[in-house]
Amino acid sequence: MTNKKGQVIVITGPSGVGKGTILKSVMEDDSSLCFSVSATTRAPRPGEEDGKDYFFVSRERFNEMVAQGELLEYAEYSGNCYGTPRKPLEKLLDQGYDVILDIEIQGARNVMKSYPEALFTFIMPPSFETLEKRLAKRGTETPEKIALRLETAKQELECYKEFQYIIVNDKLEDAVAELQAVITAGRCRCTEYIKNKRGM
Amino acid sequence: MTNKKGQVIVITGPSGVGKGTILKSVMEDDSSLCFSVSATTRAPRPGEEDGKDYFFVSRERFNEMVAQGELLEYAEYSGNCYGTPRKPLEKLLDQGYDVILDIEIQGARNVMKSYPEALFTFIMPPSFETLEKRLAKRGTETPEKIALRLETAKQELECYKEFQYIIVNDKLEDAVAELQAVITAGRCRCTEYIKNKRGM
Repeated sequence: MTNKKGQVIVITGPSGVGKGTILKSVMEDDSSLCFSVSATTRAPRPGEEDGKDYFFVSRERFNEMVAQGELLEYAEYSGNCYGTPRKPLEKLLDQGYDVILDIEIQGARNVMKSYPEALFTFIMPPSFETLEKRLAKRGTETPEKIALRLETAKQELECYKEFQYIIVNDKLEDAVAELQAVITAGRCRCTEYIKNKRGM
Repeated sequence: MTNKKGQVIVITGPSGVGKGTILKSVMEDDSSLCFSVSATTRAPRPGEEDGKDYFFVSRERFNEMVAQGELLEYAEYSGNCYGTPRKPLEKLLDQGYDVILDIEIQGARNVMKSYPEALFTFIMPPSFETLEKRLAKRGTETPEKIALRLETAKQELECYKEFQYIIVNDKLEDAVAELQAVITAGRCRCTEYIKNKRGM
C-alpha cells in the first residue's frame, strides 16, 4: 500500500436488506478495501467464523471492552451487543486501506462523532414486503426473532435521512456498482486529496 | 426518461488538462447525461460546431444575453466571454437528464450560488509540466495565447480547494471511471433520493 491514509465507509440498513451480499461482492473487486470485524455477544450463525465474520465474545468480555475504551462504537440490537474495536480500525486506515464498518444505526451515529468525514451509506429495500420475504427465506431464526427484526427494521427505515447516501438494493449488480461508486467518489473528495497530499 | 429531476455536474480545470476527452468518454457511456452548450464570443477552433460545441455569438449578442438575464453564469476568460444559457439547462434537468457544465472557475463560483447541490469537480493535471506539454501539442493557438493560458492555469490550480471533488487526469481511463463514480454517487445522495421520491 502507499502512504495514503484510508477512509471509513459506514454501511447500515435493516436486517435482510442484503448488506452482506453487496459487501462480499464489493470487497472481492477491490483489494484496497478491508472489513472491520465487529465484536458481538450474539451466537454464531451456521458457517460464521470467529475472527473473520465477528469476534464472538461473552457479555462479560464485551462489558470489559466497553469499560477499557477498546470500542469505537457499540450498540445493543435485538438483544445482542455489537461493537467496533478501535485499534485494528486505526491500524488498517494508517496502512492505506479503506475500511468498511457494517454496523447498526445506533453505532453509525456514534461513528459520526469520531469520523464525521466517513461515507455514511444506508442500504434500503425496494419495499418493506421484499424485506419480509428475504428475512423469512433466510430460515436461520425463529418466527419471534424475525418479528422482532421486522419491528426494528420499521424504525430503522425511518432514519435513512441521517445518512449521506441511500442505495436501494433492488438489483444486486446495481447496488454493488453504486456502492463502488460511492467509495471511488469518496476517494476523489477534495478533503481526501488534501489529506493524502500532506502525507507525501 | 422518468419523472426524476436531474443533477447539475460542474467540471472545471485548466486549459489542456483533458476535460474534453474525459467528458466525451463519460457521455458516450451514459445516455442520461447531457452537455450544457455554452455561449461564447471566442472564435471556433477547427472542427467545432455551432450549437453543438458552443453557441458562437458576437460580443453584442453576448452582452444582450447578460442584460436579459438569459445566462446562469458568465465569465470572461483569456479575452473571451463564456456563459451558460439558463432555460435549456432547466429544461434538461426537468426532463431527468444530469447536465454537465464544462465551465471556468469564475463561472463555477456563480453556479455555486444557484445550484449549491451541484457536483463541483476540478480536473487536475498530474503536474504542471504535463499541462505545458499538452497545450503546446494541441497546436491550435499562438505561443502568446498558450503563455496566457498557462499563466491563467497557474492561478486556477490554486483554487482547487473550492471544489468538492478532485480528479487527477494521469491515466485517462482512471479519470473517466472516477468522474463516472462521482456522477453515480451523486445520484445516490440522500438529498437526491428525497427530491425524487417527492416527485413521484
